[in-house]
Amino acid sequence: MPETFFSVEIQPRFNETDGLGHINNTVLPVWFEAAREPIFEIFNPSLDLSQWNLIVAGFTIAYTLPTNYGMPVLVKTWISRVGNASFEVAQQSWQEGKQTAEAKTTLVYYDYALDKSQAITDVIKQQLIRFTGE
Amino acid sequence: MPETFFSVEIQPRFNETDGLGHINNTVLPVWFEAAREPIFEIFNPSLDLSQWNLIVAGFTIAYTLPTNYGMPVLVKTWISRVGNASFEVAQQSWQEGKQTAEAKTTLVYYDYALDKSQAITDVIKQQLIRFTGE
Amino acid sequence: MPETFFSVEIQPRFNETDGLGHINNTVLPVWFEAAREPIFEIFNPSLDLSQWNLIVAGFTIAYTLPTNYGMPVLVKTWISRVGNASFEVAQQSWQEGKQTAEAKTTLVYYDYALDKSQAITDVIKQQLIRFTGE
Amino acid sequence: MPETFFSVEIQPRFNETDGLGHINNTVLPVWFEAAREPIFEIFNPSLDLSQWNLIVAGFTIAYTLPTNYGMPVLVKTWISRVGNASFEVAQQSWQEGKQTAEAKTTLVYYDYALDKSQAITDVIKQQLIRFTGE
Repeated sequence: MPETFFSVEIQPRFNETDGLGHINNTVLPVWFEAAREPIFEIFNPSLDLSQWNLIVAGFTIAYTLPTNYGMPVLVKTWISRVGNASFEVAQQSWQEGKQTAEAKTTLVYYDYALDKSQAITDVIKQQLIRFTGE
Repeated sequence: MPETFFSVEIQPRFNETDGLGHINNTVLPVWFEAAREPIFEIFNPSLDLSQWNLIVAGFTIAYTLPTNYGMPVLVKTWISRVGNASFEVAQQSWQEGKQTAEAKTTLVYYDYALDKSQAITDVIKQQLIRFTGE
Repeated sequence: MPETFFSVEIQPRFNETDGLGHINNTVLPVWFEAAREPIFEIFNPSLDLSQWNLIVAGFTIAYTLPTNYGMPVLVKTWISRVGNASFEVAQQSWQEGKQTAEAKTTLVYYDYALDKSQAITDVIKQQLIRFTGE
Repeated sequence: MPETFFSVEIQPRFNETDGLGHINNTVLPVWFEAAREPIFEIFNPSLDLSQWNLIVAGFTIAYTLPTNYGMPVLVKTWISRVGNASFEVAQQSWQEGKQTAEAKTTLVYYDYALDKSQAITDVIKQQLIRFTGE
């Protein structure tokens, strides 16, 4: 993890538990998407949905410990790769000092009007690189 | 309940359970919205989101029995009131022959471009009335 | 609204928007359940799911304005009625200084082992009454 | 894909769309978990939550096309690997004859009482292998 990363605290919700008494595995991708908001703002400062310019190409997630209800979760987010039109976001969830999950998500800088990817501008690249630890 | 109503079978999903071992109460409004799709089609036959013309004004829901994972749920839907610009949808969830919840939702025929309600046309009213049991 | 109420700030999540560009109506009951956590703690200080003692009997929700992505929401929660075995929670969502929705939820103090409601103790009643404005 | 696979049709729900007008990326893992129910039944025929014996170790998902509201989705599920205590499930979502996403999920045969993985029995292995195409 680089020294510079985004960090957001999430309070698990009662409806996010499942019948096994833990936070359901499908909830973590929702938290991770929510925690990428500072990255969305780099690409679209107003967060105006009509000007959205990112698309998720895919992600890989690993669950290392159950995440529980009743205690806050810290989601740490940084940039693990910057390519020409795409970049990768690394994220970890932590609870009571232990990592419970980690994911890497590939996002593409996307022109929805033209329906195709576009080269990430140098200005944006500079902002992303601040969170890569390079 | 009128003799003519919509009916849709829903298979509860594992992630819809909560830590108490039942389907979480917030899931029923999601199922009920999904089960209103035939009504959405009366107003917007293509279901094209860019031509959407309904808005939810509110709803009341009562839970009569826990809904469980592992068994199908039948959602019954009909029209309980037709007004000038709004109408009310009545819905019940049934599992193993017993009602588990019921709700009444008020929907407004809405012009999103003008940002105001509009009078329900006679053609649409005729279609809604078929499901009121009148 | 009484002078004493719970207040929690919620950051709308990207996945909580729907195709109309607003927060989907089914999300508000999820936020309102999450915002009832201080009330859950009155009944179950550890929030241990195996000792849960509340059940939702039903709720009524009214949507007064669309709730948008990109701006925080304030959820205000207080107690609007305390009965023998049940009580009612009133909640409002506010965004940019305007109310977007309000709900009243009836909760029952419940013994899951015996599968029946139980009288709310005086100790708990005292704590609830602090949030009724009486 | 092997000749023998599970197939389930899912009707996208209105609340599963997001502000970009498509099904939100976090919904696909929910559908894929729901579509694994026949596999859950191999391990736990009654689907009784108190006897659950599987845990998700992680998954990888790739989005190949947007998934839309208003048209059914077919989820195809098969077994891509069977190990000693774990196995991998491959899944694809299809809409209008085109693949929109695919995922591989690793599940572990788990003893929740002992809090550790256990060897998959030969009887279960035989049932899993029927869906590997071997």
